Amino acid sequence: MFRTHTCGELRKEHAGQIVTLCGWLDHQRDQGGLSFIWLRDRYGITQVTFSPEAGASPEEAEALLQKVRTCRQEFVLQVKGEVIQRPEGGENKALATGEIEVRPLELVILNRSDVPPVQPSIPDLPSEDVRLQYRYLDLRRPDMQKALALRHRIVKIMRDYTDELGFLEVETPMLGRSTPEGARDYLVPSRVHAGKFYALPQSPQLYKQLLMIAGFDRYVQVARCFRDEDLRADRQPEFTQIDMEMSFVSMEDVMGMMDGLIARLAKEVLGIELQLPLPRMSYADAMERYGHDAPDLRYGMELIDLTDIAKECEFSVFRGTADAGNRVRAVVAKGAADKYSRKAIDELTSWAKENFGVKGLAFFKGAEGTLQAPIAKFFNEEFIARIKERLEMTDGDIAFIIADTFETSCRALNGLRRRLAKELELYDPKSFSFSWIVDFPMLEWDAEEERWVAVHHPFTAPLPEDEALLDTDPRACRAAAYDIVINGFEAGGGSIRIHDNALQKKIFSLLNIDDETAKDRFGFLLDALRFGAPPHGGIALGLDRLAMIFAGLDSIRDVIAFPKTARAADLMSGAPGLVDEKQMKELSIKVEKAEKTQN
Amino acid sequence: MFRTHTCGELRKEHAGQIVTLCGWLDHQRDQGGLSFIWLRDRYGITQVTFSPEAGASPEEAEALLQKVRTCRQEFVLQVKGEVIQRPEGGENKALATGEIEVRPLELVILNRSDVPPVQPSIPDLPSEDVRLQYRYLDLRRPDMQKALALRHRIVKIMRDYTDELGFLEVETPMLGRSTPEGARDYLVPSRVHAGKFYALPQSPQLYKQLLMIAGFDRYVQVARCFRDEDLRADRQPEFTQIDMEMSFVSMEDVMGMMDGLIARLAKEVLGIELQLPLPRMSYADAMERYGHDAPDLRYGMELIDLTDIAKECEFSVFRGTADAGNRVRAVVAKGAADKYSRKAIDELTSWAKENFGVKGLAFFKGAEGTLQAPIAKFFNEEFIARIKERLEMTDGDIAFIIADTFETSCRALNGLRRRLAKELELYDPKSFSFSWIVDFPMLEWDAEEERWVAVHHPFTAPLPEDEALLDTDPRACRAAAYDIVINGFEAGGGSIRIHDNALQKKIFSLLNIDDETAKDRFGFLLDALRFGAPPHGGIALGLDRLAMIFAGLDSIRDVIAFPKTARAADLMSGAPGLVDEKQMKELSIKVEKAEKTQN
Repeated sequence: MFRTHTCGELRKEHAGQIVTLCGWLDHQRDQGGLSFIWLRDRYGITQVTFSPEAGASPEEAEALLQKVRTCRQEFVLQVKGEVIQRPEGGENKALATGEIEVRPLELVILNRSDVPPVQPSIPDLPSEDVRLQYRYLDLRRPDMQKALALRHRIVKIMRDYTDELGFLEVETPMLGRSTPEGARDYLVPSRVHAGKFYALPQSPQLYKQLLMIAGFDRYVQVARCFRDEDLRADRQPEFTQIDMEMSFVSMEDVMGMMDGLIARLAKEVLGIELQLPLPRMSYADAMERYGHDAPDLRYGMELIDLTDIAKECEFSVFRGTADAGNRVRAVVAKGAADKYSRKAIDELTSWAKENFGVKGLAFFKGAEGTLQAPIAKFFNEEFIARIKERLEMTDGDIAFIIADTFETSCRALNGLRRRLAKELELYDPKSFSFSWIVDFPMLEWDAEEERWVAVHHPFTAPLPEDEALLDTDPRACRAAAYDIVINGFEAGGGSIRIHDNALQKKIFSLLNIDDETAKDRFGFLLDALRFGAPPHGGIALGLDRLAMIFAGLDSIRDVIAFPKTARAADLMSGAPGLVDEKQMKELSIKVEKAEKTQN
Repeated sequence: MFRTHTCGELRKEHAGQIVTLCGWLDHQRDQGGLSFIWLRDRYGITQVTFSPEAGASPEEAEALLQKVRTCRQEFVLQVKGEVIQRPEGGENKALATGEIEVRPLELVILNRSDVPPVQPSIPDLPSEDVRLQYRYLDLRRPDMQKALALRHRIVKIMRDYTDELGFLEVETPMLGRSTPEGARDYLVPSRVHAGKFYALPQSPQLYKQLLMIAGFDRYVQVARCFRDEDLRADRQPEFTQIDMEMSFVSMEDVMGMMDGLIARLAKEVLGIELQLPLPRMSYADAMERYGHDAPDLRYGMELIDLTDIAKECEFSVFRGTADAGNRVRAVVAKGAADKYSRKAIDELTSWAKENFGVKGLAFFKGAEGTLQAPIAKFFNEEFIARIKERLEMTDGDIAFIIADTFETSCRALNGLRRRLAKELELYDPKSFSFSWIVDFPMLEWDAEEERWVAVHHPFTAPLPEDEALLDTDPRACRAAAYDIVINGFEAGGGSIRIHDNALQKKIFSLLNIDDETAKDRFGFLLDALRFGAPPHGGIALGLDRLAMIFAGLDSIRDVIAFPKTARAADLMSGAPGLVDEKQMKELSIKVEKAEKTQN
């Protein structure tokens, strides 16, 4: 037995016991004839005090002291010793084990360490590149261990919950068929079938539908998914989805199931009791009130429409926008006028132009019972009063106004709203807000490709009451789809699927996917729909993002053990790497042109 | 709500209730003015009886009867009706719901079905190719659903068990680095880094060791692994491993943890109470007594050595074998002499020659108090008596004898032993036998490559007491490795790993892996070993095989939802498939030569 206890376990009840601990030397403090070390493992830290009382004799005490002084940070130690209760007032409140310390009898150096490039016990971190290269050291940091333990806990709770409800976890293939609809696939050349490729799954969508057709009734999988996209800050080439599907269900059934899961997670992971059902908001409402389909509802600051006033006013920018069928909308930051100097507003304006393509950013400050701003001169008193009233502004408030297309004003005002709320600390960053967004449009028009594209995916069913609109007004047809939004992030989404072969064909045809293409890409699903597909629907949660939100972190890389960089490289293993000619030859492929530099 | 109950749920206690069920029309039987249908879902089958008493009136009953007669096998139906207790003696014992039937009030056809190419309710199955092409229909068969539910249950029990013990489930990357040691990798071309490749993991071995170095202490993952090998009957290009690793452990700790898991699985899945610790056998013992390192211990029929007798006898084949330092060994099938006619023995001999490369297969039958066989004439009475005594043969027994090298005789006698035990029904196919094999050799000599190769893998530690042998007699050095064997299958295996950088380098050097190669392939592990690696070890179970054994099935394809063929093709989706030129161009690769035919 290497150890009798972990480094997080001992309390004053253990006083007098002889224990053996193993762990890393977190740090060491020498003081006269004493040496204090903190021994660290995943479970906590225990102080071991090397003093003249250590060991069985003064000679042993001295030998132990000499030995521990040869140890350095991150050495792996085994300490046998007696648990000593610290005197009253001498507890270390910073440690869960702070009521005790260990008086060593034996010290074994299990392994040594060079000076580590990432030091787990020091809050100052090196660059993220160094952290990623020495990930095994970065992962020794208690914060990282906590984050991954929380991720484990989320998944365990989810598995217990779904198991209780009769879900079966079924593994679907990683080596699948490339279906170029959607994002770019990662491809895997086949050796046996020269010139052919597998694709890594972007999601198990088709397989989970097939499992419903196969009668599995309730399916869950923690599924690795792959997308070869140019990565944004919060994306990874491989990511994990909590993937579920249910048969003989309506939207209400799936959302109700998910409400129960979210409530359990909130309670067990965050200690929050949620009221169920979770609140719901229509997509149209979310865009109108927040400019975004995943609004952060931890704070208000809703968008306020001024288009009707703009239509009548004399200010040509507003009036022109309104006349062109576009929108003039505002967000108001209460009491924040002083915080936005002219210079700060200029910076905000440049930022909005650059990030959202707006032509300008107007503002009003509430002062002296009226609204003040450079553009105020374009408005007569009546309009100033009407705007002030609509915006419910008082002295000290500041309003930002965007006059642009609906889409651009949504993007810009959502961005502004999030930025202002953060800058003005309008919410407790430790608080949580959960809600559903429903009534998404089924289709949107892709002006470039001149065709309808599926907002969700081509297997999503329309709301039953909207199905007829597919023939008359496809734009107005709403989907039986739902997204779960947490703190302004889309944490997951799903839909009721099409189980009717004729309707599926109709949707493919609306999406301009011809019969041959449909057959080639989704033939096996279309086949399956001919043999008794049950009504079914499901949902998928983004586990990386969910864990990030629950852990209160800003980057999904902090909840992934071995993440990749924005250039999809693993700085620790050096993946992707060069391979032997022989390997490529066996796969019947050849590299056309190669990157010059090493990554 | 689509349904109030499942098709497996109703009992006589429900009599009188109005219920709604959904499911597939399993089969239909018409009889006069009656129609009986069996409605099937994952949970069971319920009989719905369309009779003149159905519906609210005779007219409705007639309409329901007409409607149900338009339905065919595998139609998806929703039935609302009253639960009726069947009269005493009228129960259907074949159904768990056989105490009741449902008298329908409403019938909704939720979906139709063409005539299915695989019929779930019919025991006669089409060819496996058809089953794989229409896998979603094959998976409707209750046997397949049971097998996958059992697989789910195994994993759930494992997760509960490891969670209780403080294991964290951590996901390791799928897009890793190619390390051509071992089996062939599946490669994934990188788009961002032209000419470079990711490799899909053959196992998370290095990552789990890094997690130990990172201080995770106890790790578990249900890990998808990939090997691009020419497939044998029981292999798949992607397979699933229950992968575990622990820090500060000896072999005893890992085996003890696994004993507990196996015992829990045996109890909860199979209803068997196991005695712990599970029995252990050394590798040398297993090879000597069974000719195999994963012996089936559900029956005896141990190998019996005759080499010492052979050395003295006059029969030149035996004597020559013994003199050359090779072995003469036998298996005895008690009371089976009559079952092996001369013709059957000839067939067995050809089979052994073909499969194991033996030169011949000798036999003796016990009869008239002595041994009879064509070769008996080469032995005098004394030797016949000695052989008879050694083999403990009596009249009616038959012994098969192989005179060959140790390796060949092991292979052949293991094959014979398994074949005879099956033919002679020496064991209950529903019984289970669990054991550990330990004391494996650390290295074996690869005569072709003229170097030592690792029997387990190059990260396996030697037994502490054997470590010095690495310098003096590497062949004799035993590894701190262990395999778990169930019913003659290796269900999993593991080892204590090397945590000492110097020892790891020494092993690489023994394996003829030079510094540069080691650095290139495993550099990040060697790096990590410099920064305080704890003593650690682990194990991996083959989930597919474990589920197959527990389900009492013969093929791992029957416990995998969407398996591939022996040529690594998915007959349902058509993977692998052709991809667009554009996709290849983005990846900077070109196909050198392509397979002619479609798969």
